[in-house]
Amino acid sequence: MKKTDVLVIGSSVAGLVVATTGKKVYSDKEFMVVTMQPKTLIPCGIPYIFSTVGTTNNNILPVEKMFDTAGINVKYDEVIAIDRENKIAKLRKREEISYDKLILGTGSIPYKPEWLIGVDLENVFTVEKNKVYLDEMQSKLTNCKKIIIIGAGFIGIEISDELKKANKEVTLIEKLPHILGLAFDEDISVRVEEILKDRGVEILTGIGVKEIIGDKNVEGVILENRKTIDADAVILSMGYKPNSKLAAQAGLPVSKKGFIKVDEYMRTEDPNIFAVGDCAEKRDFVTRKPIPIMLASTASAEARICGMNLFKLSAIKTFSGTISIFVTALGSTAFGVAGITETIARKEGFDIVIGIFEGIDRHPGKIKDAHKQYVKLIVQKESGIILGGEVYGGLSIGELTNTIGIIIQNRMDINSLLTLQIGTHPLLTASPVGYPLLKATENASSKVILI
Amino acid sequence: MKKTDVLVIGSSVAGLVVATTGKKVYSDKEFMVVTMQPKTLIPCGIPYIFSTVGTTNNNILPVEKMFDTAGINVKYDEVIAIDRENKIAKLRKREEISYDKLILGTGSIPYKPEWLIGVDLENVFTVEKNKVYLDEMQSKLTNCKKIIIIGAGFIGIEISDELKKANKEVTLIEKLPHILGLAFDEDISVRVEEILKDRGVEILTGIGVKEIIGDKNVEGVILENRKTIDADAVILSMGYKPNSKLAAQAGLPVSKKGFIKVDEYMRTEDPNIFAVGDCAEKRDFVTRKPIPIMLASTASAEARICGMNLFKLSAIKTFSGTISIFVTALGSTAFGVAGITETIARKEGFDIVIGIFEGIDRHPGKIKDAHKQYVKLIVQKESGIILGGEVYGGLSIGELTNTIGIIIQNRMDINSLLTLQIGTHPLLTASPVGYPLLKATENASSKVILI
Repeated sequence: MKKTDVLVIGSSVAGLVVATTGKKVYSDKEFMVVTMQPKTLIPCGIPYIFSTVGTTNNNILPVEKMFDTAGINVKYDEVIAIDRENKIAKLRKREEISYDKLILGTGSIPYKPEWLIGVDLENVFTVEKNKVYLDEMQSKLTNCKKIIIIGAGFIGIEISDELKKANKEVTLIEKLPHILGLAFDEDISVRVEEILKDRGVEILTGIGVKEIIGDKNVEGVILENRKTIDADAVILSMGYKPNSKLAAQAGLPVSKKGFIKVDEYMRTEDPNIFAVGDCAEKRDFVTRKPIPIMLASTASAEARICGMNLFKLSAIKTFSGTISIFVTALGSTAFGVAGITETIARKEGFDIVIGIFEGIDRHPGKIKDAHKQYVKLIVQKESGIILGGEVYGGLSIGELTNTIGIIIQNRMDINSLLTLQIGTHPLLTASPVGYPLLKATENASSKVILI
Repeated sequence: MKKTDVLVIGSSVAGLVVATTGKKVYSDKEFMVVTMQPKTLIPCGIPYIFSTVGTTNNNILPVEKMFDTAGINVKYDEVIAIDRENKIAKLRKREEISYDKLILGTGSIPYKPEWLIGVDLENVFTVEKNKVYLDEMQSKLTNCKKIIIIGAGFIGIEISDELKKANKEVTLIEKLPHILGLAFDEDISVRVEEILKDRGVEILTGIGVKEIIGDKNVEGVILENRKTIDADAVILSMGYKPNSKLAAQAGLPVSKKGFIKVDEYMRTEDPNIFAVGDCAEKRDFVTRKPIPIMLASTASAEARICGMNLFKLSAIKTFSGTISIFVTALGSTAFGVAGITETIARKEGFDIVIGIFEGIDRHPGKIKDAHKQYVKLIVQKESGIILGGEVYGGLSIGELTNTIGIIIQNRMDINSLLTLQIGTHPLLTASPVGYPLLKATENASSKVILI
């Protein structure tokens, strides 16, 4: 029987980062990764295969090379059972591997509404994180003109925009009143809707799908209002669910929503088994409640912590809770959110004030590619601590969102922001006197006791 | 005699922000700003009048409107003396204004090397922050083909690039071994040199100018190696010196380098007189030594603190020291620095390790406008605290530099960075597994005791 000190299941962001971090810290230990994927995709790049990068071949995470450089063994197989007592993983190809530490990076799988009639018709797709599936899907979509996308989260709007760019007729259907309704407050969602409409995507919000129709191939959907929309293909982007089957089978505690229970060192109930990434339960940094957030960047942070704590616990390297940090772009406009939204803050019972400012992201405004920049801050009233921020602007919004994320992670308050030093430059940022993040802070500060 | 509660001298970033912040906090007080400038320029936009924005008219800070909205009085005049005992400011137009609190936002003036022969010839310019001067300079430059720029700090390289874009033959001369030699370590400076050369600017480094030659009009310069270079115009961008004449005349303590001495509330020795911006002395956040940094963003932070502390001191709103945060761009490439460089850290006696990573700022790399991104972190060895960072990449570098600035201001260390949560997106940032800031941190961490 093969033996390894550390066995990692999964080669996507979680598995990759936990293995490479762990090997770096515990270089005398032997590491092995078992993966079902002959080629690992960059998860957040998947929507972009439909136009921007053209094919899954341009969206490969070079894990082989990275594992090789790091001195980590890789096996292309599937773990089908875990014998916790004997510390053995059983593989599909009848092999057994004994481990000292085991890490579950089994990820997530698309949610498929089995209650929906017609969900198994030809040309009804989910967005699998699987090259073979996506290649076939992309090939079939070539012959489709009218495409309906159900579910307007990030993946839904990104794929809508990409397929529109690929000259498809795209209709995006969302049951919530607004697209991106779980990630952003309404003020931002409405802006994203406007842009997506301008770019030619049909948007239907506040209405659900009653049935998917067709004989063998899909022919359209029937909405809750009984209206029918024709389609040559339907893409279900209704979220993902944690892939925790293996953990559950092995008797590890799993939450009601299917996430593997972990502590702040990313350990499961079994001291020798860890879970990281989409399959592991997350707790919100601000509300402290479990949240079903699945982000490569969160997976990456968890995996680093897990890798460092594999054989020795370090009190300073625990996971302090998940901060939702989302960013995306449509053309030259980007949107981002870090921490909690106004809606969630109010729902959770925080006494908050809101600071808003809209300016531009270059100065003077006459600079050619200047773009509006909108910043909204959610601030806890007595403490002045920043709980969340939403932004809208040009392509530097990606890094600006991270700035806000770091502000939240440091539990910075209004006073520390008002006296914050930032760098500004005509070609790169807003002006020092009109920097929207600081102006939004000023705006919020006028609503709390300032001196 | 006119009376005002608060009198602010200067309408550039320092004066503007101190007046608007102060008025917001102390709305029952009367504020007046005295300025010599009929039109206030955006200071960091000045280099861009030569091509990108075309004219000073496109680079105006709309202070009139901002003062008007805020309910602040403005007087276009010059304060020529301060009677501290009677708390009266005397104006050039023979008026006198009595104040309760006075704020000096007198800024800086270009350094002009009076020891240099030929410095007063026609078509030898400095970079004044003055619309009338710049308009005349720009008009004269229209007829000049060959232009020499002496001094390769930020203003020097920005103006070089702009004049090159305006089809001039540009030679940039710098006495230090590399351009931007005070702001960046050599590894970054060398990259900037390459780009600027590729864009057609002649660069001479490691050599000084011995003499500026010409009869009435400038005709060229003689270098220290006796070589002569022809020129129709010479621009001196050799730095700025604080404009503290008024303060010194009033008997306020001024440093050897000419900066007005202030405490962490931005108060001068006189409890009723404050100084902010370029004219006020700065202390480095990391080294705690005085530094001659002049930045609109620093001025802005100082001015906010001053405005909040005018009539009541708040212990939580003191100025914690200046963090140098510089960013600039040449075409599609940008460079930034926050905190101290490796060179300065070693000179000051910090025991440091360096973390470096070069990746790309989009993912996958096949995304169209992906740009190399290089991050260098300067880390104090025992504590793991981040002392500085230098970055090089695409246009999102502006905000990434601010991210590093906030990391430094929060005294974050390697451990908190390794477990940091960041947001990533194919079209906006590097990948979660190859995010250069975190990879550079990993690189540094392998050189310190990690567990």
